Amino acid sequence: MNKPHFHKLKIIDLGIGTYHESNIFLRADSHVVTSEGFAALTRVVVHKNGNKIVATLNIIHSDLLKDGETSLSQEAMERLGVNHGDTVTISHLQPIESLKYVRAKMYKQELNDHAFKAIINDVVAGYYSNIEIAALVSCCAGNNLSVNEIIGLTKAMIGAGSKMSWNKKMILDKHCVGGLPGNRTTPIVVSIIAAAGLTIPKTSSRAITSPAGTADTMETMTNVNLTIEQIKQVIEKEGGCIVWGGAVKLSPADDLLIAVEKSLDIDSEGQMVASVLSKKAAAGSTHVLIDIPVGPTAKVRSQEEALRLQYYFNAVSQAIGIQTEVIITDGTQPVGRGIGPSLEAMDVLAVLKNAIDAPADLKERAISLSAALLKMSGNYADGTETLIARSTLESGEAYKKFIAICNAQGGFKEPKYATYNHEVFSEKEGIVKSIDNRKLARIAKLAGAPISPSAGVLFLAPIGKQIKKGDLLFKIYSESFGELEYAKEYLNCLKELIVVG
Amino acid sequence: MNKPHFHKLKIIDLGIGTYHESNIFLRADSHVVTSEGFAALTRVVVHKNGNKIVATLNIIHSDLLKDGETSLSQEAMERLGVNHGDTVTISHLQPIESLKYVRAKMYKQELNDHAFKAIINDVVAGYYSNIEIAALVSCCAGNNLSVNEIIGLTKAMIGAGSKMSWNKKMILDKHCVGGLPGNRTTPIVVSIIAAAGLTIPKTSSRAITSPAGTADTMETMTNVNLTIEQIKQVIEKEGGCIVWGGAVKLSPADDLLIAVEKSLDIDSEGQMVASVLSKKAAAGSTHVLIDIPVGPTAKVRSQEEALRLQYYFNAVSQAIGIQTEVIITDGTQPVGRGIGPSLEAMDVLAVLKNAIDAPADLKERAISLSAALLKMSGNYADGTETLIARSTLESGEAYKKFIAICNAQGGFKEPKYATYNHEVFSEKEGIVKSIDNRKLARIAKLAGAPISPSAGVLFLAPIGKQIKKGDLLFKIYSESFGELEYAKEYLNCLKELIVVG
Repeated sequence: MNKPHFHKLKIIDLGIGTYHESNIFLRADSHVVTSEGFAALTRVVVHKNGNKIVATLNIIHSDLLKDGETSLSQEAMERLGVNHGDTVTISHLQPIESLKYVRAKMYKQELNDHAFKAIINDVVAGYYSNIEIAALVSCCAGNNLSVNEIIGLTKAMIGAGSKMSWNKKMILDKHCVGGLPGNRTTPIVVSIIAAAGLTIPKTSSRAITSPAGTADTMETMTNVNLTIEQIKQVIEKEGGCIVWGGAVKLSPADDLLIAVEKSLDIDSEGQMVASVLSKKAAAGSTHVLIDIPVGPTAKVRSQEEALRLQYYFNAVSQAIGIQTEVIITDGTQPVGRGIGPSLEAMDVLAVLKNAIDAPADLKERAISLSAALLKMSGNYADGTETLIARSTLESGEAYKKFIAICNAQGGFKEPKYATYNHEVFSEKEGIVKSIDNRKLARIAKLAGAPISPSAGVLFLAPIGKQIKKGDLLFKIYSESFGELEYAKEYLNCLKELIVVG
Repeated sequence: MNKPHFHKLKIIDLGIGTYHESNIFLRADSHVVTSEGFAALTRVVVHKNGNKIVATLNIIHSDLLKDGETSLSQEAMERLGVNHGDTVTISHLQPIESLKYVRAKMYKQELNDHAFKAIINDVVAGYYSNIEIAALVSCCAGNNLSVNEIIGLTKAMIGAGSKMSWNKKMILDKHCVGGLPGNRTTPIVVSIIAAAGLTIPKTSSRAITSPAGTADTMETMTNVNLTIEQIKQVIEKEGGCIVWGGAVKLSPADDLLIAVEKSLDIDSEGQMVASVLSKKAAAGSTHVLIDIPVGPTAKVRSQEEALRLQYYFNAVSQAIGIQTEVIITDGTQPVGRGIGPSLEAMDVLAVLKNAIDAPADLKERAISLSAALLKMSGNYADGTETLIARSTLESGEAYKKFIAICNAQGGFKEPKYATYNHEVFSEKEGIVKSIDNRKLARIAKLAGAPISPSAGVLFLAPIGKQIKKGDLLFKIYSESFGELEYAKEYLNCLKELIVVG
């Protein structure tokens, strides 16, 4: 799509990091800027040995660069595969054709498979600026995508990433729609299922708008950045894994979209379904269990929304040839005690080790999800699945399997508590009536989760609990004083976080 | 909304320009980054002497900055009013509350006046990143805003900018919705109206997606960056002016939104109506003429769309107390010969000077718009307005007034031709049947317009013209060889730009 031009420039590594977006720095008076008429916010193509990337132009008004020199952001250098001192050429970026589909979508036209394929391929190629990705995710937000559009997006995402294949007939998988703080069942479920001899290569995402994703939590205990080859070795050996999906590029488009969604703090139903199922398809899954927790302050707030999602998951699964079971579960309050990567990891370990104080709710959810997966496998007599799941966990087999999986992924380490903390006590006596999950999640995020892995909230006041005045309701953990102050500041203006009456 | 924190940092001016967005550069290992847990794409608040701005964080991985130092982009330094060596403090950005309305709009909720006020105030304060502005303009694109929303947005835009007041009862104004290459009637109309003794303080915008806006064209002949005080002096003296609206901050929100719209190459009906009328209201206009050219390749393509816009303009005008007349005109082909700032300026001058080869279509459009404005004033006997407009132009009074206005704005200069050009000849004989305005505009843009003011297209083949094989159809002008090549490259893949049959 782009014709290389004649301008050769020498790369000076200024060491500037701009996150996901590629940036190029050029002198205001450089030959390229003046002769080509580039302006700021312009996007240009940078070429090196047949490779090319698109980068957003920043102008240098000082002597940081000499004429004939240019600088690329760290991300851009890595993407293009160049180093300090290398020579690159620069050309104009011709209009990105697929943006016409994004504009059509803004104008409420329905997009077909071809349009999504064009968009997603261009996103993965790095042709979209963050501004353009923001436009894309904004017009696909909420429930703005039709079922056919979600199918188109899912297929496009599958097509744009790597695919895994297995020598087994049945590959199990699970996914929770999220929004329920602390609901970290995955490591337990994978351990139970793998211990039962089934195959479950689980790739998880990092948090989008929540204080922790499964990948964030697992990262406090083991390595989650595995290549496809390494995952295959882990699965060959242990039958299960819990790794970060982004590292294996199963759906590379998704990671780029999620970074922008995160900064906008939005979720998209259609994009979520596409994201989940494209990763399952790319991971070679044949049987997928989807858990949708519903509650007034969970990610999915109403039964209506849950049923719509269930329909989307089923319709898209059918279109791409995956057997899917969607269960709608109780999402009225946090699961376990920890909210944040390390704190959730501690809950997971407590359940796996059958610790006396292990959170019973987390344990029971994990058993019931495991039973549903065992049932989907068709390997067990009807009605025995729950018993088998429970005995696999309580016998310690699941824990043994979990440690084996962590070791296979690169070694197990204990999650840690953060240095700074702040305790919040009840000012009232009574029974816990309701909890605002979103506000609890926000406190954990303000305290630093998930970027600071040991930051978060240790939550000790589940609905129905009898509370005395002065009882500890929850404890905020932070890795820095500043973040703790920040979370406390938010806490001080809150009302009705936990209603005791 | 933000609590200053305790981190003091010294500003190092690295001279990095990032266009409209404010950026801050911090060392990866700096105390602020590690203790506060900032991540890239994070937005932070930068404070200096009670002033504050919000800036997007970039991380420096090299020794460009020492510990205790930070750098701001040129735009950020200007906005905050700081210089190299000054000390600033940095704090976390608390969530921007008004973004909840943007999210609500994505989810198709209708926004009220309060929501628009909150959004626009935050945009003007610089609290929105380009990603957030992209989300905003995307969900307001096309005809996604209701009439009530457009009124809300218009009021918010008026409220967020400066206002001009005049000691006169009647302030005239005109606006063309655009999309018709070369349709530069404004300088002529203002000259006629002011020469007729009426008051017309015209503020114009720069191009959004077109090769030239009126401000871009005027800038090739005079200064358009006037302060409100300077505009008042020009009006006091000459009764008319033609200045850039952005420079007087009549609707500062609009300029920020337009920059992002431009990079996404989208227009929004509602935002356009709000943009136009908010500027008219802020400019103190009492009587406004709106010209909507309609044609298959103009900005407004159908009568239906034109009528909807007419309705929006009328409804919003009524809500904010402005008398508006909307006329729908022929937009099937370019007006005049020039497409691009300087080339259009030459057409304007030819008409004003009554040159023998002056484009007749531009002249007639200007006369008819001037007549409509004279009629709105109520100062003339019915049916005499066109005669008066014509005689004011043909007598040379309008030209005298134009030069006087330019001199009052800072002096008149002649527009120039660009150095590089390329001529395109007809390969066929026959009559010009149709013209693709959008493709012609794109050629002019690829050739460098409006950033390179003398770049563009000189168009010589209007519909109905008898063409011989080898006749010059149009001429592309560029300020650089690279841009000319680029426009030619696009031209070579075009079909049906000008249909001769």
